[in-house]
Amino acid sequence: MTTRYLEDFNVGEKFISAKLNVSEADILDYAHKYDPQPFHKDKEAAKHGLFGEVVASGFQTCALSFKLFFETGIITACNMGAPAVDNVRFLKPLKAGDTLQVEVEVAEVRPSKTKPARGILVLHYKTTNQRGETMCTMSIPHIVRRRPA
Amino acid sequence: MTTRYLEDFNVGEKFISAKLNVSEADILDYAHKYDPQPFHKDKEAAKHGLFGEVVASGFQTCALSFKLFFETGIITACNMGAPAVDNVRFLKPLKAGDTLQVEVEVAEVRPSKTKPARGILVLHYKTTNQRGETMCTMSIPHIVRRRPA
Repeated sequence: MTTRYLEDFNVGEKFISAKLNVSEADILDYAHKYDPQPFHKDKEAAKHGLFGEVVASGFQTCALSFKLFFETGIITACNMGAPAVDNVRFLKPLKAGDTLQVEVEVAEVRPSKTKPARGILVLHYKTTNQRGETMCTMSIPHIVRRRPA
Repeated sequence: MTTRYLEDFNVGEKFISAKLNVSEADILDYAHKYDPQPFHKDKEAAKHGLFGEVVASGFQTCALSFKLFFETGIITACNMGAPAVDNVRFLKPLKAGDTLQVEVEVAEVRPSKTKPARGILVLHYKTTNQRGETMCTMSIPHIVRRRPA
């Protein structure tokens, strides 16, 4: 897919990422460094948790979801960062061996009123697993560049 | 601080975490694995970004903020997971050498209507840096256990 700028996006457009398989080692590694709760990092303790096995930190699911979309290349040239993440919902846990894929829909395209070279691109993220179940949704207002003159 | 259960929390109570110094290596390592944007992972490219230097992925700031609170031990016994993260706001970037500290305020304590052994504990997170500037805020509705009979 081709790199875009703010004016190249239209509300309602959708993009699909590649797929990513997540291993037990990936989940345990993230948990040890960033979310050391027993049900994320400890296989034995996780047996007594809500899911009966180790599940990934929600922050890992969010980060991998964004990464999968970023790697499409669509916002490589235009994305400057984001001031927020809204309405993160964890609907199904990410488990060892799951394969993630992300669908991103353009929700809003808004040129800045004060900075002519940029604007806000609100994207809705929906992450599914290999069974087509929605695992995670979130909304990110990205600050993106307009096409250079 | 002592481990708590749902009924031990009161709206308006605040907790302060320990401090955590974040190195450039921490930021680059996270970016390479989870958020490979140039202004997170590439010192040279970051000079041309919004901040003129490498800044941490917002997902890293969120995860470390939760981790700092988790390590107080307050929710060690009661926390079962979270179905959501709301209203994440990135107000100041996390830069190499910054020291994070998290203040958590109890926003809501709500016993489950259908599951007598648990409830929802909504916590507001505020992460500050070594200058006392607020860097990040977010709200998490944690599923927590009630005190065992």
